[in-house]
Amino acid sequence: MEIKVLTDILAANKNAAAEVKSILKGKKIYMIDMMSSPGSGKTTLNDRLIEALKKKYRIAVIEGDIKTTKDAERLARHNIPIFQIETDRFGGDCHLESSWIKRCIEQFDLDNLDLIIVENVGNLVCPAEFQLGDDERMVVLSVTEGEDKPAKYPLMFNTSGTMVLNKIDLLPHLDYSVDELMDNLKKVNPHIRVFQVSAKTGEGLDTLVAHISGNIDKKKNNA
Amino acid sequence: MEIKVLTDILAANKNAAAEVKSILKGKKIYMIDMMSSPGSGKTTLNDRLIEALKKKYRIAVIEGDIKTTKDAERLARHNIPIFQIETDRFGGDCHLESSWIKRCIEQFDLDNLDLIIVENVGNLVCPAEFQLGDDERMVVLSVTEGEDKPAKYPLMFNTSGTMVLNKIDLLPHLDYSVDELMDNLKKVNPHIRVFQVSAKTGEGLDTLVAHISGNIDKKKNNA
Repeated sequence: MEIKVLTDILAANKNAAAEVKSILKGKKIYMIDMMSSPGSGKTTLNDRLIEALKKKYRIAVIEGDIKTTKDAERLARHNIPIFQIETDRFGGDCHLESSWIKRCIEQFDLDNLDLIIVENVGNLVCPAEFQLGDDERMVVLSVTEGEDKPAKYPLMFNTSGTMVLNKIDLLPHLDYSVDELMDNLKKVNPHIRVFQVSAKTGEGLDTLVAHISGNIDKKKNNA
Repeated sequence: MEIKVLTDILAANKNAAAEVKSILKGKKIYMIDMMSSPGSGKTTLNDRLIEALKKKYRIAVIEGDIKTTKDAERLARHNIPIFQIETDRFGGDCHLESSWIKRCIEQFDLDNLDLIIVENVGNLVCPAEFQLGDDERMVVLSVTEGEDKPAKYPLMFNTSGTMVLNKIDLLPHLDYSVDELMDNLKKVNPHIRVFQVSAKTGEGLDTLVAHISGNIDKKKNNA
């Protein structure tokens, strides 16, 4: 499996997110923008989700990192189309932009895809400001990161439709209150859907997989 | 156009950083710029360091957060001067800038200070690009964040003089290789000093406190 590195990026296009949305609507492809701090376990989660979803759906991945193709390499075993965007080549940017996503998806075989997972740059701040044209913004938060993150990074949690609380296998070893996190979360976004999982042990993943599958099916059947 | 603006911002930041450096040199005050991902345990570490260092030194703190004064409130018990910068008031910025640090320190009683600890916004990307005029850039990384972070965020680890590896009390519960982390770290910065600590249990803090104390004393005695 060759991992392509995107090297030629045009200037950000204000309308690119809308164009991405329109293309994906036409092709009935569901897209998730997965965002989080560095080290929350996005790639492990992604790996698990692909493992479960690829039995039924055709998936492609866009990996965003400042530097390295490590995450793409970790997912290469799935033998699915993967684009790695190294933002270091464009000035070390701290987020992905919709024009880059558009360039990527134009190179996918869109007639043979059901789902695109975008793994954004590890950063709770800047990616929140850049809509990519996705169907679902999913913020991943690990239980080692403290209960106060929704209050401290409100835009990220406020603009996400889904929060995945990861690494719940570590809860017995931490002074962590899930209730306190939920209180903080509901204050900035009362409508956000929450899934508690351990990407490491697999706990809770079935429910998340069912949620995503339902959304993929809905888009396929509607448009 | 956008590149030009960014250059202007970085140039202005560089000038203000030099002014901060000059002021602190005149007053023989040591300043640490503490940076990390969200949730690495910066504030708990800061709390512990202040507890240990305030017996001997006069300390002030500048807290950077996008939103909330939670971190400043957590440190208020020390009864030391604390400035909270909520970057949300300046457009939700993902980092602190030297001009803001300058405005803060101008309001401290600089003749009665030995140490200023700046706790930057939780972000492994953007704060790396903005020098604040400090004496020591300290990146805090927790063991739950994976071994690959120095490779994926090279500017942060490359421009820091010190790395604090936090949450080592969790090592028995993780599949984590400190050796692999160190390999990745040394590739981007062979000269960085590393301290392994648990801000929660206190393990390893004595060595870090001794390191900081030595640097404070050195600046006092030299300049």
